[in-house]
Amino acid sequence: MTEPLGGNLSRLRQLNTLAVVHALRRQSPLTLTEVAKAANLSRPATEEVLRDLEAQGWVAQVDPVAGSMGRPARRYRFRADAGHVLGVDIGGHTVRAIVADLDGELRHSERRSVSVAAGRAERLRVVDKVIAECLAGAGLTGADLWATTVATTGFVDADGRVVLSVGLPEWTGVHLGEHVSGRVSGPVLVENDCRLAALAETWRGVARYAEHVVYLLAGLRTGAGLVIDGRLHRGFARAAGEIGALPEMGWIRAQEHLRGWSGAPAGTDPDEVVALVFAAARDGDRGALAAVRRYVRDLSIGASALVLALDPQLVVLGGGFSRSADVLLEPFHRELEKRCVRTPEVLPSALGDDAVALGAVKHALDHLEQHIFDPGNGLAAPEPPQRP
Amino acid sequence: MTEPLGGNLSRLRQLNTLAVVHALRRQSPLTLTEVAKAANLSRPATEEVLRDLEAQGWVAQVDPVAGSMGRPARRYRFRADAGHVLGVDIGGHTVRAIVADLDGELRHSERRSVSVAAGRAERLRVVDKVIAECLAGAGLTGADLWATTVATTGFVDADGRVVLSVGLPEWTGVHLGEHVSGRVSGPVLVENDCRLAALAETWRGVARYAEHVVYLLAGLRTGAGLVIDGRLHRGFARAAGEIGALPEMGWIRAQEHLRGWSGAPAGTDPDEVVALVFAAARDGDRGALAAVRRYVRDLSIGASALVLALDPQLVVLGGGFSRSADVLLEPFHRELEKRCVRTPEVLPSALGDDAVALGAVKHALDHLEQHIFDPGNGLAAPEPPQRP
Repeated sequence: MTEPLGGNLSRLRQLNTLAVVHALRRQSPLTLTEVAKAANLSRPATEEVLRDLEAQGWVAQVDPVAGSMGRPARRYRFRADAGHVLGVDIGGHTVRAIVADLDGELRHSERRSVSVAAGRAERLRVVDKVIAECLAGAGLTGADLWATTVATTGFVDADGRVVLSVGLPEWTGVHLGEHVSGRVSGPVLVENDCRLAALAETWRGVARYAEHVVYLLAGLRTGAGLVIDGRLHRGFARAAGEIGALPEMGWIRAQEHLRGWSGAPAGTDPDEVVALVFAAARDGDRGALAAVRRYVRDLSIGASALVLALDPQLVVLGGGFSRSADVLLEPFHRELEKRCVRTPEVLPSALGDDAVALGAVKHALDHLEQHIFDPGNGLAAPEPPQRP
Repeated sequence: MTEPLGGNLSRLRQLNTLAVVHALRRQSPLTLTEVAKAANLSRPATEEVLRDLEAQGWVAQVDPVAGSMGRPARRYRFRADAGHVLGVDIGGHTVRAIVADLDGELRHSERRSVSVAAGRAERLRVVDKVIAECLAGAGLTGADLWATTVATTGFVDADGRVVLSVGLPEWTGVHLGEHVSGRVSGPVLVENDCRLAALAETWRGVARYAEHVVYLLAGLRTGAGLVIDGRLHRGFARAAGEIGALPEMGWIRAQEHLRGWSGAPAGTDPDEVVALVFAAARDGDRGALAAVRRYVRDLSIGASALVLALDPQLVVLGGGFSRSADVLLEPFHRELEKRCVRTPEVLPSALGDDAVALGAVKHALDHLEQHIFDPGNGLAAPEPPQRP
């Protein structure tokens, strides 16, 4: 067996390094013996890799446990605080931001209201403020960020430009990637908000176990995010999930059944009426129950089209209306059963208003996994990756 | 650098073996030097691997080229004829079968008509006959097969049982996997026919370059097969693609606009009327053109729902009606443009009636790739794989 190894050794060394990093990211702190076992490497090889990783700043030694017997074994941890990511959710009424470390541990979050009627410049000013406050709250600056994801309504191109936003017309054409890039280091990714909410559900929400998920944003607008084979589905030109644009799907008119409810006091803002309908339906008001039924019926046509097309394991009911899942879920499930060949499980989101910003954080982390912690790439000393 | 390699060497040897096999499958015949270069291995390592592969029956030496100068270099080829796969398409009117070798080279095909009104036993007898004739035509027996895929209309479970067939009601409940397993060696896979036609298009059809494809079966029934991220999309319980079951999608009534055309001679079988409508539309008959327009409109509602949901690169118009693409394509594209955020390319299938059987062959080959030619599995001497 005198197999000439050629270029295979440095490749092997790279794989060993990543095996150690992955072991420490799964569980920390670990002793040398534990790392070697978890990474499936010899003790001397593990020691060499750990020495390099410590010198580079990826790994730190942990202080010995007080009171332990004999000479305590040295223990190692992955330095998740070597870098940070930022998730920003730009909604119609609110802008949110969350900072997390490389392990997805949340460090700080901020939010600010913005009028749905705000112009583009005003909304961008609020975005800047929320980002600055969120970084300051975490004790960081933009230079500490390794990746940022910005979530927005509408159809976004690969460059980070909003191609079309029906919900916020003044938003169409804004180059969010460019705007935010001026404020942070590392790559800035821009992504559709429904898609990121779906991703958040597979990360920290009710869809953690599912590979095929239809996420419904049920609120003052209706949207969808798709997870297929465990991955966010974007489509060929990032326009996937826009099934609601087809009038036959019922999503354009669905919320009007609630906004137009006649039981609210005259002069109530239609957006406010919705909460009143749900409350009245909860109390058994017949008119309110009928309005909810009509809403659910229209919501379920588009939802059934997605279920029939994709056969997901799970439908997640998210968005603002998911707070009224007690009123919505049962009739919604019944409508799906009427229409579908196989009815999937339906669960309400438990992430509340943070779903989109959480998804943005996860999306930024996934980008780093792919570009930094992947066997295809070497592992250099920790620093913000270059912009693509 | 005294890295202990432990279990890594035999793994390396396995990878080297597969690198040689992949090199020879990409291009054959090759000299030793060419194989070493294509597999990115040293000459001695390549020689050792080739010797083993030849002894096992995976690789054969090719006779030296007549008339070449000097002592001709030995050349090697992958033995694609070490095993074969079978694809069977059980349709309403016809049963087809194709045998191919491990490189997907087609060896023989057979077809037989069957009445759409045939009972289950009669249809299965035709299936048996076509399989036997196809194998005989290729000079093989069932024992030579390494994998078989059977295509059928309807929703099929993982065991190979038809859970629901709307097109062929007597077919619901038939255990196709079990039936065909008695006639061939190796695993028998059963799969929905629209899905396999979509797969065929990505293999030898118009969708070769596309990662996201919506395939439409446009014929006496309307169906869909989805390719997402380069892979056939089945969904959680293999029920994906059934969007046509939703009445709002227009697919249930679509073909009735053609079958019900009033321009055909009284008493014509409605299924026969369709060809007459297309011919009359081609000649500019107003009534026929209107019927085609109504059909296209309904076809495009469901198609738009899929396009809006998935944002494919390409829509393939397949099925029996795709022979009239000259009449259908332009109005169909126009309807999509009206409804979609981004209109993909639309191409008619060029595979004709063989699409489903070809897809079945490809599906069986993919199964072998995954279970035999994958780095995760060793490579034993060529013989039919065990049933799962």
